[in-house]
Amino acid sequence: MAARSLLLIRGGCVVNDDSSQEADVLVEDGVVQAVGRHVLPPGDAPAGLRVLDAAGKLVLPGGIDTHTHMQFPFMGSRSVDDFHLGTKAALAGGTTMIMDFAIPHKGHSLIEAFDTWRSWADPKVCCDYSLHVAVTWWSDQVKEEMKILTQDKGVNSFKMFMAYKDVYMVRDEIGAIAQVHAENGDLVAEGAKKMLALGITGPEGHELSRPEAVEAEATLRAVTIASAVNCPLYVVHVMSKSAAKVVADARRDGKVVYGEPIAAGLGTDGTHHWDKEWLHAAHHVMGPPLRPDPSTPDFLMNLLANDDLTTTGSDNCTFNSCQKALGKDDFTKIPNGVNGVEDRMSIIWEKGVHSGKMDENRFVAVTSTNAAKIFNLYPRKGRIAVGSDADIVIWDPKATRTISAKTHHQAVNFNIFEGMVCHGVPVVTISRGKVAYEAGVFSVSAGDGKFIPRKPFAEYVYKRIKQRDQVSLGLQGLDCHVLLDVGAGIITYSGVTYSWDVRKS
Amino acid sequence: MAARSLLLIRGGCVVNDDSSQEADVLVEDGVVQAVGRHVLPPGDAPAGLRVLDAAGKLVLPGGIDTHTHMQFPFMGSRSVDDFHLGTKAALAGGTTMIMDFAIPHKGHSLIEAFDTWRSWADPKVCCDYSLHVAVTWWSDQVKEEMKILTQDKGVNSFKMFMAYKDVYMVRDEIGAIAQVHAENGDLVAEGAKKMLALGITGPEGHELSRPEAVEAEATLRAVTIASAVNCPLYVVHVMSKSAAKVVADARRDGKVVYGEPIAAGLGTDGTHHWDKEWLHAAHHVMGPPLRPDPSTPDFLMNLLANDDLTTTGSDNCTFNSCQKALGKDDFTKIPNGVNGVEDRMSIIWEKGVHSGKMDENRFVAVTSTNAAKIFNLYPRKGRIAVGSDADIVIWDPKATRTISAKTHHQAVNFNIFEGMVCHGVPVVTISRGKVAYEAGVFSVSAGDGKFIPRKPFAEYVYKRIKQRDQVSLGLQGLDCHVLLDVGAGIITYSGVTYSWDVRKS
Amino acid sequence: MAARSLLLIRGGCVVNDDSSQEADVLVEDGVVQAVGRHVLPPGDAPAGLRVLDAAGKLVLPGGIDTHTHMQFPFMGSRSVDDFHLGTKAALAGGTTMIMDFAIPHKGHSLIEAFDTWRSWADPKVCCDYSLHVAVTWWSDQVKEEMKILTQDKGVNSFKMFMAYKDVYMVRDEIGAIAQVHAENGDLVAEGAKKMLALGITGPEGHELSRPEAVEAEATLRAVTIASAVNCPLYVVHVMSKSAAKVVADARRDGKVVYGEPIAAGLGTDGTHHWDKEWLHAAHHVMGPPLRPDPSTPDFLMNLLANDDLTTTGSDNCTFNSCQKALGKDDFTKIPNGVNGVEDRMSIIWEKGVHSGKMDENRFVAVTSTNAAKIFNLYPRKGRIAVGSDADIVIWDPKATRTISAKTHHQAVNFNIFEGMVCHGVPVVTISRGKVAYEAGVFSVSAGDGKFIPRKPFAEYVYKRIKQRDQVSLGLQGLDCHVLLDVGAGIITYSGVTYSWDVRKS
Amino acid sequence: MAARSLLLIRGGCVVNDDSSQEADVLVEDGVVQAVGRHVLPPGDAPAGLRVLDAAGKLVLPGGIDTHTHMQFPFMGSRSVDDFHLGTKAALAGGTTMIMDFAIPHKGHSLIEAFDTWRSWADPKVCCDYSLHVAVTWWSDQVKEEMKILTQDKGVNSFKMFMAYKDVYMVRDEIGAIAQVHAENGDLVAEGAKKMLALGITGPEGHELSRPEAVEAEATLRAVTIASAVNCPLYVVHVMSKSAAKVVADARRDGKVVYGEPIAAGLGTDGTHHWDKEWLHAAHHVMGPPLRPDPSTPDFLMNLLANDDLTTTGSDNCTFNSCQKALGKDDFTKIPNGVNGVEDRMSIIWEKGVHSGKMDENRFVAVTSTNAAKIFNLYPRKGRIAVGSDADIVIWDPKATRTISAKTHHQAVNFNIFEGMVCHGVPVVTISRGKVAYEAGVFSVSAGDGKFIPRKPFAEYVYKRIKQRDQVSLGLQGLDCHVLLDVGAGIITYSGVTYSWDVRKS
Repeated sequence: MAARSLLLIRGGCVVNDDSSQEADVLVEDGVVQAVGRHVLPPGDAPAGLRVLDAAGKLVLPGGIDTHTHMQFPFMGSRSVDDFHLGTKAALAGGTTMIMDFAIPHKGHSLIEAFDTWRSWADPKVCCDYSLHVAVTWWSDQVKEEMKILTQDKGVNSFKMFMAYKDVYMVRDEIGAIAQVHAENGDLVAEGAKKMLALGITGPEGHELSRPEAVEAEATLRAVTIASAVNCPLYVVHVMSKSAAKVVADARRDGKVVYGEPIAAGLGTDGTHHWDKEWLHAAHHVMGPPLRPDPSTPDFLMNLLANDDLTTTGSDNCTFNSCQKALGKDDFTKIPNGVNGVEDRMSIIWEKGVHSGKMDENRFVAVTSTNAAKIFNLYPRKGRIAVGSDADIVIWDPKATRTISAKTHHQAVNFNIFEGMVCHGVPVVTISRGKVAYEAGVFSVSAGDGKFIPRKPFAEYVYKRIKQRDQVSLGLQGLDCHVLLDVGAGIITYSGVTYSWDVRKS
Repeated sequence: MAARSLLLIRGGCVVNDDSSQEADVLVEDGVVQAVGRHVLPPGDAPAGLRVLDAAGKLVLPGGIDTHTHMQFPFMGSRSVDDFHLGTKAALAGGTTMIMDFAIPHKGHSLIEAFDTWRSWADPKVCCDYSLHVAVTWWSDQVKEEMKILTQDKGVNSFKMFMAYKDVYMVRDEIGAIAQVHAENGDLVAEGAKKMLALGITGPEGHELSRPEAVEAEATLRAVTIASAVNCPLYVVHVMSKSAAKVVADARRDGKVVYGEPIAAGLGTDGTHHWDKEWLHAAHHVMGPPLRPDPSTPDFLMNLLANDDLTTTGSDNCTFNSCQKALGKDDFTKIPNGVNGVEDRMSIIWEKGVHSGKMDENRFVAVTSTNAAKIFNLYPRKGRIAVGSDADIVIWDPKATRTISAKTHHQAVNFNIFEGMVCHGVPVVTISRGKVAYEAGVFSVSAGDGKFIPRKPFAEYVYKRIKQRDQVSLGLQGLDCHVLLDVGAGIITYSGVTYSWDVRKS
Repeated sequence: MAARSLLLIRGGCVVNDDSSQEADVLVEDGVVQAVGRHVLPPGDAPAGLRVLDAAGKLVLPGGIDTHTHMQFPFMGSRSVDDFHLGTKAALAGGTTMIMDFAIPHKGHSLIEAFDTWRSWADPKVCCDYSLHVAVTWWSDQVKEEMKILTQDKGVNSFKMFMAYKDVYMVRDEIGAIAQVHAENGDLVAEGAKKMLALGITGPEGHELSRPEAVEAEATLRAVTIASAVNCPLYVVHVMSKSAAKVVADARRDGKVVYGEPIAAGLGTDGTHHWDKEWLHAAHHVMGPPLRPDPSTPDFLMNLLANDDLTTTGSDNCTFNSCQKALGKDDFTKIPNGVNGVEDRMSIIWEKGVHSGKMDENRFVAVTSTNAAKIFNLYPRKGRIAVGSDADIVIWDPKATRTISAKTHHQAVNFNIFEGMVCHGVPVVTISRGKVAYEAGVFSVSAGDGKFIPRKPFAEYVYKRIKQRDQVSLGLQGLDCHVLLDVGAGIITYSGVTYSWDVRKS
Repeated sequence: MAARSLLLIRGGCVVNDDSSQEADVLVEDGVVQAVGRHVLPPGDAPAGLRVLDAAGKLVLPGGIDTHTHMQFPFMGSRSVDDFHLGTKAALAGGTTMIMDFAIPHKGHSLIEAFDTWRSWADPKVCCDYSLHVAVTWWSDQVKEEMKILTQDKGVNSFKMFMAYKDVYMVRDEIGAIAQVHAENGDLVAEGAKKMLALGITGPEGHELSRPEAVEAEATLRAVTIASAVNCPLYVVHVMSKSAAKVVADARRDGKVVYGEPIAAGLGTDGTHHWDKEWLHAAHHVMGPPLRPDPSTPDFLMNLLANDDLTTTGSDNCTFNSCQKALGKDDFTKIPNGVNGVEDRMSIIWEKGVHSGKMDENRFVAVTSTNAAKIFNLYPRKGRIAVGSDADIVIWDPKATRTISAKTHHQAVNFNIFEGMVCHGVPVVTISRGKVAYEAGVFSVSAGDGKFIPRKPFAEYVYKRIKQRDQVSLGLQGLDCHVLLDVGAGIITYSGVTYSWDVRKS
């Protein structure tokens, strides 16, 4: 019989999303056993106890990166951070769980894609992970497979096109959340063609061909469709002020919509597309593009602080310079993607907490807790409490580090945050109750992480959805209430109430 | 040789869109010859002079109704106001020109449709008219016909779907303006299905299945596409606050977009869909629906006063009660359409001018002048000035009349403004220099009106479009300036300027 | 020695603001001892244990009403709900703590006012309470007293005029939160004069003389001043859509601002000012007025659901009909105030939770937790957790009750929510660990409640404020960063960054 | 008897605010006699006829600069452009009329100030001018003098503090328009103090101490007060995006509000406050400050194009470097003011017309016509039409010039637009029917210009105001309609209508 694994984090300030407290944390066999003062009975320390000193430090729930693409075959290349190096880098940055995307080719099985991604990830991951699944085409088979993935495979989030049929199914039959990449494909294609015709072949053409109005329009369309069928919506990589405003306004209107900005969008901007060095510019190419309006990052951070945006990912999808060079003569051939899985937590601390935009509790919410709630992992993930997984970071809010491709732990040879000095350094990262990273040293092996299945109908998301179904027509969202059994009802439309009776004529 | 036709309007206050002045108006052979004091030389009145006393009255350019559907075959019926009765009613209300729509069936010739509508209208119209043409499908033939219609047939406005290809062509090769009916067809269809499934078959189901978010989303999509290809856009029948806000915001951003509210939307609201009397409710059914939010009309009027909305039509498309009854058991079968061609001017005077929202000059702008400018009829139409067509109304701003189906001059047996007391009464309507209507008596015959061809590239619309083409990339609209000849340029993005050089790499 | 007081709430669903769980709650001597399953060791129940069955019910933190005026001498009258009946009514409605206002006359001592209110409340209150203090004038004495109140008397919130000096002090020297009643006094006075001059003396004149633009303008002014001196702001009784929008926009901009709608504004509207029965209308008179725009309550609730508004009070300040009648001939003499302390929780459940706008967790946040955080009572109040005060409500979400003056427990003879059927009924209310109200029966005595002192510099509010002080100039809020020691700095202005050096010239 | 002065402008394109036409313009004795083709009878040219060739050029109404401070004694200095050099420079730039401000000291007579300014200007001005009068204090004398100025002195605009009493009077008893400088004086003073305390004494402190939120707040306050008493409002020098948005939103709500951006705000920005050269920075100091957000000019220009902003001035108030140097050690001592009277037209052409934001007609509206309408000079000024003053500019839209202090005609030794290449060059400027400036050469003498008195109750402004007074309570603006004679009425509040009867109780 294996010895108990016991870990005591002593003297730190435990930070959850609702409040902070001076407390010790006792971990046994991967799970938090106690939070408080004097969590060990007086007397000798138990055998096998490891004590970590967290005095003067913060003790945070490990980060959850909601959006990564490890070893992703894309645009004729494959992203260089695989599930091994990518998750190691995550741990070095204080992230203890990633959510990747299984993406089938059009016409191919979703379940096969899911299995493929599992087969890539399971032997390699150093921290826990989960999988979203992309719906890239539509048929009865897809429908059937979505059901199976939800019921048997632990998937409760699907990234999809914006047709109401898919969205409807996601909600009604599955209890998942619909994720959208909001850009108008036609306009993007037309824009690219036009840029090339004008002789603009450099990376700046990437942004010029996909202006933010295109992102905002698609975001509003997704919001309108999802709301019409009372389906919860999750907008991945909100990159622009105008798209973020669409999300924020939808939330003010009471719609069940969540927006995910990413580390890149919060930490840098699209002026780099005009950098004189082609490679520098090309390394910033992703879709939707980083925006050249330099006030974008602060705007997004303010909305993140204010809960108009909810979670944060990285969209980590990294390509080395020789891969980026595929688009030397044509920006449409530059593999899209940037780094972020390692630096996300530091970027948000620096730009969000150190700047005074949010406090440490909101930091925990947006880097971890909210993702756990939306994707139905809470309170197992996203909180330091008795019974939760011991995914924990000891964070030094006063230390600083300088981000650089020379020192980062990712496979890629470029870092879009190069040279940025960040307050807030992860000193120790604990994954599944074990110290995985400490002061630059890893103690973790490929396969130490596990796939974490997620159940459908997350309460955080679906309580309101279900209630609205009960009291309303659904199509109208929450504004239309009807008593179906008697064939009469009332509608509250923009807050004004009318009654009617379908039997009246 | 015919005697000269001479008309003198004496002692009134001539109101144009820029200012008002006490002045007489002398009309000869259908054209304004003089505006001012003492426009006749001293001495005897010329032979054949007719003098109209306008003392204490306003003398206005005749109204232009930008949107009618006379004798329109639609939903298995045909609208009862034909080009004869419809234009007589227009004259009775102070409108001296209507713009109707030639609408081909899918797969059929646009020119044939145009010719059909001409053949219906020419022998019947009592006032001048013009035709927009709908683009209901897409092919090389359509493309070719659009060119012919523009170059040879006097059409400079096309109502169309929202695909960038059509829009692009409208601007680039034709110089017309793109008109859109902004609703998301998929969502409308789905909504109707759902309502019926819920057992809601009455007229209230019409609005419930097409909520205003659906209109607003489609409006933003049209704005985004048109702006992306630098095409001027004209949104017909703006019915909701949220759609109107999309138009207004687009204009604030510098986009070349015009919004057309209609008499129905400015004068009544969608609460009537819940009226206890089925026929009353059904007579209010049109698409997009009148909105149940009762603050909608005032909101639209404020925006019309402020030039966030620009023109006004009626979407006059009238069906008698026995026709409306086709949808007795299923609201989707109720022929869509309401009246407005006769009452539009009075509604806007009452709700706009009498309420203090706009002055008499703005009234002229929104009922006449702006339409003339956008559709390239100015200053022939839309202004009382030397050389303009003598389409003139003598308007008594202090008199009142009560709108009623019993007394109106339209064919339809219902009036959505029934019982409304309106200040502002057209006392005399002059069409093409002749008194056509005076104190309830018509002096006009079928065929007295003429088809008015319109030239492409209206200056009011295209001056900015052309200039933007010269200084910008077009796709980005006015925010992106580039010097193409040297392969370098600058972009001003959300007002922040960056420069680049496409040769740099 | 007294026997232990032991209470076990068994089988319910414990709802906190972050999540819900099936759990028992063990209470000892007024404090929560355990939350979970099997909180009692196996074996016999301890002596004195009382068990409450909560199966099928929710177990919520007791409500905190942030805004009451019990037995308030006002406008020549005194509000009829005193601290005894008022707090009993609170308990009947599920509220276990109220926050009242000590309001000195101009020129009089703040501390004396505080002591007076204590002397009124202490012997009478049936539940815990706290006091805000109003700053009605300004002098060195006031300044000194504010310090003493903060340091020695447990006050950390001051309601005040909108001059920057007061606001500045609140933040800098005291660590409290500034509360404002946002109306422009000059315009209100002028408006009232004008109404009376026009012969409008009825209750409708109250709203007509204080339109919502006046509230919105004052709200923006308060936000601007507070932000300029980096002081946290709390806007009491947000009554209108436009004022709420000002608060929400300020939060989007990153300002530390909280808005408090009240039960009246969330549950009814100002159309009642036009009720044919004078007394009915007069009973709705409060300041700022309930708004006649009937979409106001839904709008406010949506913002409350979305965290654009944060807490809820009642502004309970009740006058009987004979008192209201003082204003029979002159609306300015109608004592201002409405009920709400008893019904606040039910109103928010019905309009917020039952309608699907918010879930039960957000309900707890807005009725209790957020107030506890802002006013520095968390987690003692506002959460069911080990160590928290046992202020708990057993809530039946499926039961309904009909609100009526005939059955309510308040002293006042009118209820503005008369006849409203509410889902969500408080079955048992536990105050300080004892059952105070159960199924209509009180077991509580005057003086059972206690005054709860509050410490300054609430972390929830001040973490960001302090950080901004460290990294910024303060005057500019978070947008201006400067390194003061070297005389140089950078400014991030609307997100665009510039650097400067004050030594440069 | 003097010979007739006859001038023929031949072959140009006459541009008014509503449309453009190829036409000749015949001028006699300072007044336009004819506009059209063949305006001279066939035969010999009349004696004394001067012909100007305008082929390929535009013929525009001369510009009206709504806001100048010539030879203004201010901050211990006096602005160096006096009425002679200042108006010469105006003519060189295509401006044919300026509106200056007579500003009494507190406690001093308004009429004396007016007479003083007249005595300075009359002998010096080279083009027509008019005077606004500032209300710097309040008393019965001030009230009386305002009446006299309006009735006898040709003043219809007063710049004032934001108290409702003054505003009320302006409208009710006088028929003028209220002008406001919108900044919160308290916050500005506090901000300056704080900056100096922090050791920030350079020009950047000027903007840092008066952030745009302070301007926006004051703008909303002015809008709210003016609207409450149904007084037309004119906001001078709108400098920031947020203040401009307040104006635009007020107009959307139907308020009678006009916003005036200035050349400086449209052509440059506040980043210059951080320029390394102190003098360069100091020469950009004015109040309210130029804003460092570089997207401000484009934003303001878009609103100007869209009629959300209405007129343009320059706030020309120039100080030489040696004067600016008074504030070397303390930015609060830098005399406030920038140039603009000469370059305003070119800046707006370049940034507005050449960029494609507005067409030439809108250019005429915002540089001339709208000012003439608001200040009751239309159509004498602001239009090229028979009977109008012959203040005309021949404008070459294709030519370019480079702005520089070395070549400008102003007295000041610095130009904030230095080096800007502008399309659009005034080739000939005609003032009062005489060529005053042609190709760099002046033919004008001090005193050639005249004071132009203005009558109260401008129709453009007051038609709506008066109508609202008739149909509404005034205090509520247009939203509240009442039939006063019967003591009953209806209110339309945010578009929802309720009725009441003041006799009901």
